Amino acid sequence: MPTLTEKLALQGGAPAMTITPAERWQPPVEREIELVSRLIRERYLSAAGRGFAREFEDEFGAWLGVKHCASQNTGTSTLQAAYFAVGVGPGDEVLHPCYTWICSIAPAVHLGARPVFCEIDADTLVIDPADMERRITPRTRCISVVHLFGNPVDMDAIMDVARRHRIPVVEDCSHAHGATYDGRKVGTIGDVGCFSMQGTNPGGKAVSGGEGGMIVTNEDHLWERIMAYGHLNRKGLVDEYVSPEYRALGETGLGLKFRAHPLALAVAKVSFETLEWRNQRIAENRQRLAAAPERVTAITLVTSYAKAHMAGFYGGLKGIYQPERLGGLPVERFLAAVRAEGAPMNGRAYDLHHLLPLFARGFDLYGGGRGPLTGDYRGYRPGDLPVSEAVHPNIVSFPALIDPAPGYLEQYGAALEKVAAHYRELL
Amino acid sequence: MPTLTEKLALQGGAPAMTITPAERWQPPVEREIELVSRLIRERYLSAAGRGFAREFEDEFGAWLGVKHCASQNTGTSTLQAAYFAVGVGPGDEVLHPCYTWICSIAPAVHLGARPVFCEIDADTLVIDPADMERRITPRTRCISVVHLFGNPVDMDAIMDVARRHRIPVVEDCSHAHGATYDGRKVGTIGDVGCFSMQGTNPGGKAVSGGEGGMIVTNEDHLWERIMAYGHLNRKGLVDEYVSPEYRALGETGLGLKFRAHPLALAVAKVSFETLEWRNQRIAENRQRLAAAPERVTAITLVTSYAKAHMAGFYGGLKGIYQPERLGGLPVERFLAAVRAEGAPMNGRAYDLHHLLPLFARGFDLYGGGRGPLTGDYRGYRPGDLPVSEAVHPNIVSFPALIDPAPGYLEQYGAALEKVAAHYRELL
Repeated sequence: MPTLTEKLALQGGAPAMTITPAERWQPPVEREIELVSRLIRERYLSAAGRGFAREFEDEFGAWLGVKHCASQNTGTSTLQAAYFAVGVGPGDEVLHPCYTWICSIAPAVHLGARPVFCEIDADTLVIDPADMERRITPRTRCISVVHLFGNPVDMDAIMDVARRHRIPVVEDCSHAHGATYDGRKVGTIGDVGCFSMQGTNPGGKAVSGGEGGMIVTNEDHLWERIMAYGHLNRKGLVDEYVSPEYRALGETGLGLKFRAHPLALAVAKVSFETLEWRNQRIAENRQRLAAAPERVTAITLVTSYAKAHMAGFYGGLKGIYQPERLGGLPVERFLAAVRAEGAPMNGRAYDLHHLLPLFARGFDLYGGGRGPLTGDYRGYRPGDLPVSEAVHPNIVSFPALIDPAPGYLEQYGAALEKVAAHYRELL
Repeated sequence: MPTLTEKLALQGGAPAMTITPAERWQPPVEREIELVSRLIRERYLSAAGRGFAREFEDEFGAWLGVKHCASQNTGTSTLQAAYFAVGVGPGDEVLHPCYTWICSIAPAVHLGARPVFCEIDADTLVIDPADMERRITPRTRCISVVHLFGNPVDMDAIMDVARRHRIPVVEDCSHAHGATYDGRKVGTIGDVGCFSMQGTNPGGKAVSGGEGGMIVTNEDHLWERIMAYGHLNRKGLVDEYVSPEYRALGETGLGLKFRAHPLALAVAKVSFETLEWRNQRIAENRQRLAAAPERVTAITLVTSYAKAHMAGFYGGLKGIYQPERLGGLPVERFLAAVRAEGAPMNGRAYDLHHLLPLFARGFDLYGGGRGPLTGDYRGYRPGDLPVSEAVHPNIVSFPALIDPAPGYLEQYGAALEKVAAHYRELL
């Protein structure tokens, strides 16, 4: 290949990549406008439990194969409702992977719970069930798992721990719309499933409407709490309650409002219509791209558990850079060289959350030494989660492409190969 | 007038009202669609602190004359952020009027505070400052006032109590966009102002975008807490922090997400463009309608404090039915007769919240006897707030019309007069 003999772009050579833009797929914008305009004309701008919003919820729930499904205003509020539903409150502990997005953690903190951070597995980048089990205490009220970047958690192991210790499981599926474990869609295996619908396609959540979320459960008594907590004045709300103390609450429930915006749901519905097709295309292109890092040998692609099937792919495709294979070349230098060739590749994506100042040092949320992150809260230090801290600096992201320009993936592979061939010049 | 000799419609006579529909004004739907379509094409579907959302926030803040203004996803979340900002947390008490909407109360409860319900004034239907002051304890962390149905609270009296006791004031202005007290717009007098933008015009909040809210303050240290609490990843977030412990939190703040949907803001912006004109028209039509109840003598219109100027008018115009002026005719019977004449008139609008089962009996929010509404929470009983309980059954609502059909208001007055003339037949 001629590119292999060319000087590195970082050192003045011609970049290996010439094809742009990478992604040819475009979201069906006019279809979004058509649906949104229809709802505006119908003055359907604040509604829940009826009409378009309810139809979309029912469709999404049926696609997952789950009994109850409600739309909410953010993925974050679905997590808050999920933690509330399973009984998270003041004095509790919730187990979280240390590597995720803060919105998966903070809602439990604001219910009064302390986050207990767990190691991630160095190959899958999702929560390590064995490490997680070791952190269970009498105060552990919930296991929170995240199917990070669309890669399902080892749900057999998680559910085994959960059942033995009788601790409910919340699945954060914000990155993983359509991913499966043992043939079941993620979000339907634990007690409550939460899906963000933030952003826009491509690049946003796999089903995206700007801001929004979906919350699902098969359990009537959890659904009752989800409904009472954030769905006041939802049509038919009282019919969703199963116990007398909730029925007494009536239409105003517990008084919070997590209702989704109908126009967000309209955009998300249009996104949902192409989800399976996009998931399929990204999976195929992932396979094609997989050839490149293996050829380069400097990057190991993230692996999945045996029963897991990736989808959603929020945040791009993930690999782990192996500096020892390129003579110890630091990851930043490697990434700079790759990018100079015109090949998009990003680093870590998320911080390790046990080392965020908020969770490492703690914070007096309400003043006067109140809240879960103050008092005898011990916080975290570098070294507390050695496996995660070792792998974290070397996590890299590839583009998750739906309809790449012809030849793009081949050029991408060639760019990586070129950098690998010249790494000594970068040391 | 011929209608006075006609039999009551409730007893088989011809209804006094023949003009329909009452409201001729229509919201500028095509302008909403134009703006929403532009934002969809620009893929401006999740953004904060920049572009259109920021421009609208700045415009809204400048109109109020306030230093800081941010949009949020609901009025409820603005109240949650306001209570958090002023330091409401576990173990606190918050003073609320007993007559309001639950979303003004519940966010403080979910921060761990107990609601302490106060009497309303029987003429203005808003919180009674003297009664409120008597309920202050060492645990009182916040005074929450609601400019109910657009009628400003006695802010001089409220701020006097607040200053003497050093308790911050949150203004719920969800019904009162543009109302003033002593020449200042409500929301800018207390420590934090909150505005719902729920629903659609006419009928929804005076500025409405389906679901949404605005939160405002003049205080940098409160703004810092508002920003950290629910505005993660807002553009320029870290620049809004004034103290080092907040700056250390960085772009993810305290991890919650109250960001408004841009399409909600687009609809709300179009609504905002006609606000002052609508407020003016409703105020004029209120004056015209005022003639009718006075003529009838069975209804006293809600009054305002000397320095207060109503606006917003959410929930319609309010009056208090005086059964003793119609020989003790019960309010339900009076309302039925008025409605039978074709004159829309509704009752109480809101429950007295100290008597809602949630607050009267309490509720074990988190299970295991945790949360502010359990343990030694005493709850409320009928008779606890006698002034409010006496006036509440007789509260009635008139239409707040922007551009009534010609002759409509005159017919409305005639319908009321007819019922009053025939009341003996209803006893």
